[in-house]
Amino acid sequence: MILAKPIRRLIEAFERLPGIGPKTAARLTFYLLHVPQSELDEFAGALSNLKKETVLCSICLNVAEKDPCPICSDRSRDKSMICVVEQPLDVLALEKAGNYKGVYHVLHGAINPLQNIGPEEIHIKELIDRVRDRDREIREIILGMNSNMEGEATAMYIKNQLKTQNSPASPSEAGRAKFKITRLGQGLPTGGDLEYADEVTLTRALEGRREF
Amino acid sequence: MILAKPIRRLIEAFERLPGIGPKTAARLTFYLLHVPQSELDEFAGALSNLKKETVLCSICLNVAEKDPCPICSDRSRDKSMICVVEQPLDVLALEKAGNYKGVYHVLHGAINPLQNIGPEEIHIKELIDRVRDRDREIREIILGMNSNMEGEATAMYIKNQLKTQNSPASPSEAGRAKFKITRLGQGLPTGGDLEYADEVTLTRALEGRREF
Repeated sequence: MILAKPIRRLIEAFERLPGIGPKTAARLTFYLLHVPQSELDEFAGALSNLKKETVLCSICLNVAEKDPCPICSDRSRDKSMICVVEQPLDVLALEKAGNYKGVYHVLHGAINPLQNIGPEEIHIKELIDRVRDRDREIREIILGMNSNMEGEATAMYIKNQLKTQNSPASPSEAGRAKFKITRLGQGLPTGGDLEYADEVTLTRALEGRREF
Repeated sequence: MILAKPIRRLIEAFERLPGIGPKTAARLTFYLLHVPQSELDEFAGALSNLKKETVLCSICLNVAEKDPCPICSDRSRDKSMICVVEQPLDVLALEKAGNYKGVYHVLHGAINPLQNIGPEEIHIKELIDRVRDRDREIREIILGMNSNMEGEATAMYIKNQLKTQNSPASPSEAGRAKFKITRLGQGLPTGGDLEYADEVTLTRALEGRREF
């Protein structure tokens, strides 16, 4: 009770953020006491406008200022290739890598039965609809979910859902899938030590070995 | 440039905080995209009101809602004992320990020549004035600065400044200092391993040994 209420209020707000404990929250709050009011107002404005000034792109569901987002409205991007990712941050990571020229689909989550997140809670239906509406244009769907239990379960579920759509439309096209479904490569991360890699990673690295 | 401006703006605001790098800033920002607008507004309000709704206590310079602060206006606190600390967070830490019943003086920094922080940049003058005005009431001044270079330099400077005031007012009181100046005890922290303690800490622990 010795802390002033405005200070307690900000400490509590920081504490609600993931990975920020009571000590860090207090440290950040007391740091901000020494910052000019204009900077606090800028920070506050950025916070309250974060969601007001952004929308989900109606095509890929990424967070953007305009709909459609810059990637979906970029004529130079290859619309025949869709990389499905869990979060907007994953789009950012892939864009930073800079080699992917296709488009994205953001699920905003992964299937996680322990947290009651089923296929309906994330944007899988939108992906299925998108693929159905444009299945003749699409050549490849890359399943770019995380390489953990939830990511694998989500990838498996989406693969099964897409399989029915990927069957040939007429008997004359029998045996020809309309598009490829791929999963991001797994193995040793760059700079990774073989010695410290876990068994699953090593097994995947062996399975995914390439001619050199 | 693929990030929406409202997102970039918040990431940049988080990045300005100490100990928060670009990755953490992005993670926090994208986390907040999934949070209700009311919670964002609450966070924003706490930020912009942090300094507007707080004042520095005119006696101890701690951050408080009212002047004087709850500690200085508490009649049960021993006003004859002043613990001088660097930051409001230090007051919090000592109050949590719960054994100190005196009052405080918050310097809001420490002398740090490398960062151009001299004695005038922190609230040393206020301490000297406070001690001069009430020197007959004061029994002890505890120098509670951090146990690092800056803290030691600040403690040394304050000790020298107080020395002149601590000389007897009349020849009849010769040799009797008006108040004690002490420094917080140094040594092994509780739970600390002798094996891992550095040389300075061990030297201080030996110097500060007590009969058992």
